[in-house]
Amino acid sequence: MADGEQESTEQVITPWDVKGGSDGLIDYDKLIKEFGVTAIDQALIARVEKLTGQPAHPFLKRGVFFAHRDLSQILDAYEKGKPFYLYTGRGPSSDALHLGHLVPFMFTKWLQDAFQVPLVIQLTDDEKFLWKDIKMEEVQRLAIENAKDIIACGFNPETTFIFRDTDYVGIMWPNILRIQKQVPFNQVKGIFGLTLSDNIGKIGFPAIQAAPSFPDSFPHMFGTRKDIRCLIPCAIDQDPYFRMTRDIAPKLKHHKPALIESRFFPALQGETGKMSASDTTSAIFVTDTAAQVKKKVNKYAFSGGGATVEEHRANGANLDVDVPWKYLNFFLDDDERLKTIGQEYGAGRMMTGEIKAEVIKVLQDLVAAHQERRKAVTEEVVKHFMTPRPMPDLFSQLKISTPADAPANGGPQTAAQSA
Amino acid sequence: MADGEQESTEQVITPWDVKGGSDGLIDYDKLIKEFGVTAIDQALIARVEKLTGQPAHPFLKRGVFFAHRDLSQILDAYEKGKPFYLYTGRGPSSDALHLGHLVPFMFTKWLQDAFQVPLVIQLTDDEKFLWKDIKMEEVQRLAIENAKDIIACGFNPETTFIFRDTDYVGIMWPNILRIQKQVPFNQVKGIFGLTLSDNIGKIGFPAIQAAPSFPDSFPHMFGTRKDIRCLIPCAIDQDPYFRMTRDIAPKLKHHKPALIESRFFPALQGETGKMSASDTTSAIFVTDTAAQVKKKVNKYAFSGGGATVEEHRANGANLDVDVPWKYLNFFLDDDERLKTIGQEYGAGRMMTGEIKAEVIKVLQDLVAAHQERRKAVTEEVVKHFMTPRPMPDLFSQLKISTPADAPANGGPQTAAQSA
Repeated sequence: MADGEQESTEQVITPWDVKGGSDGLIDYDKLIKEFGVTAIDQALIARVEKLTGQPAHPFLKRGVFFAHRDLSQILDAYEKGKPFYLYTGRGPSSDALHLGHLVPFMFTKWLQDAFQVPLVIQLTDDEKFLWKDIKMEEVQRLAIENAKDIIACGFNPETTFIFRDTDYVGIMWPNILRIQKQVPFNQVKGIFGLTLSDNIGKIGFPAIQAAPSFPDSFPHMFGTRKDIRCLIPCAIDQDPYFRMTRDIAPKLKHHKPALIESRFFPALQGETGKMSASDTTSAIFVTDTAAQVKKKVNKYAFSGGGATVEEHRANGANLDVDVPWKYLNFFLDDDERLKTIGQEYGAGRMMTGEIKAEVIKVLQDLVAAHQERRKAVTEEVVKHFMTPRPMPDLFSQLKISTPADAPANGGPQTAAQSA
Repeated sequence: MADGEQESTEQVITPWDVKGGSDGLIDYDKLIKEFGVTAIDQALIARVEKLTGQPAHPFLKRGVFFAHRDLSQILDAYEKGKPFYLYTGRGPSSDALHLGHLVPFMFTKWLQDAFQVPLVIQLTDDEKFLWKDIKMEEVQRLAIENAKDIIACGFNPETTFIFRDTDYVGIMWPNILRIQKQVPFNQVKGIFGLTLSDNIGKIGFPAIQAAPSFPDSFPHMFGTRKDIRCLIPCAIDQDPYFRMTRDIAPKLKHHKPALIESRFFPALQGETGKMSASDTTSAIFVTDTAAQVKKKVNKYAFSGGGATVEEHRANGANLDVDVPWKYLNFFLDDDERLKTIGQEYGAGRMMTGEIKAEVIKVLQDLVAAHQERRKAVTEEVVKHFMTPRPMPDLFSQLKISTPADAPANGGPQTAAQSA
């Protein structure tokens, strides 16, 4: 086999490209090694439960969020009453979100409630404008539409700030410049696979996604404090941005942002990567009707069941590739029921049609509940979430920490943010 | 002579480097050809005088502003009552301006008054932060200090908007992105001599200097109008930025910005390039005392006079290299007196000490008057100039043009600027 061919079957995970290995699957253990992240183990999950006094979210206990960077340090600090905030985001390139898009937001909502911490959500309309053949006005509109679906996930309106880059970049500009000054083109070229033919906006963009990792990018929330740590829940394909950010953080006298990273949500057709918003048959969208959910699952969801009833009864289903089983693992909260389904279906006693009926019900309920909450998200509500506003009591739930609690090598610094 | 040596004596003019040819002088005719700009001729000057009803500014009639791009089109449009605005700027890297810095501002003030048009002035504190070893807070402070000296040049407070990039970049962000999307790294690499080791902020920066060339970067002044042309007075070393901008303009359905470009103001030591703010003996600063002006001219101003009195009487002065003579050409308004001095000094009847005394008087008056006006520039005044504010009657002096007067290939477009 020629070298070239061999290479083409290597898995490739970048913020713009997710491709499994030769078997079409993503080798997450390999990814952990390659990226240099740490697997989340039972002890860490137990610690989260102990600190928050809450049972772990299914995404955490079932390994959807499976890897981290410095989560232990966040927990150490939190235990001592030192504050942190959450930062996540979305690149608005489509009108409706699919279930894969919901995963980080559902988990982030749980983290916000469990830890009682503030949250910032970046909508990178600038990124989508630079990367895609799409007009400025359209990415700006999509950002607002996406914000509605994000708000519908139930974030706390008192402690959540959602921003569109084309509105907010000016406030972060001093921090963006500080980051850009530390990063030569050679570095983003390597990390993000950019080339000399890429437009200069793309080349500068990594700093824009990095900036919200530092608390003084949000003067209306954190003033000029540099001692507030940041925890970023995201899919693991975003890791390269934050590897770069963590590299720079000490030079800017900031804490390195911590990360908690998820697997990809499989497409209906199987776990060959992420779902595509441009292929409506590849995913369940939050705008789908109950009938559409049913039809899509029945027609497109890849089954690991036997080819014939006899075969299925004899060998059982292959759960490793079965999409209905995977979806249930994401969204069926009832652990006992999930276990039973796995045993029955895996042993061939439950049929493909039956597990599909189970997942259809779960997804229909999920989508209907989302649509109900989305209806309540008025323009007023969007405006509230997206307005930079004072948030004086963000950490009142914590033991109060002192602003002197800055990184070891960092002194106090005047905020350069302009009003 | 080896190729390498030959190359090192070629003149080099970029926004960051001005180096004369083998004789230390800048060959402006060569520059006109290289850059592809057009020389300003007597007919064009006469047309400016006719349209404005004013005698041309000395900088114009004496060839300080010597080259242009599309100035004729600006005048054509102006003649038909179609509006334009002026755009100039400064990179704030030093506390005090020197006389060379004043040249474009003095001329821009004259243009503003003569044509009765609005003006925007960009302070590129971000540029200086990215290029120099200087802190964010310091470039931001320098920008404000420089704004005071700029305001002291006498700009109209009703029609002038001065902005610091770290404050204002957010408003221009949609336009900056539109520009960045059109420019691959390869292009800025060529135009600006950037390399793979340059930081990603530098690589994106050209778009930030380009953005004020388009009227919808100033929604508080021009709303969403795209039909307002832009005329940029600047030193010719800034031409590369606007070659790039003019390239892109049609793709963004904007008029190409027009340019009116100056020679460099010579250092006291002679015309080997621009003066340096970091070498205080190379320039007269607007903060210099009368005694300092006198001492610097007497001690450092390069003379084209004869080495001895006899030689001077016999051969006269070489005006081509004489700095006092050059400075008088910039700042002595009285044409008759200037002519007389040139004749007398050139013929060896006026001595070096006498022409130095003339220039000392002119510069002392200029600097004293500037200092007087600068004293009147309070923080309030700075705030007024630097606040984005509605300017409803900007073009009331002109025959009113209709917003439908857009570029031939451009339709109306919704402003993407956020409030």
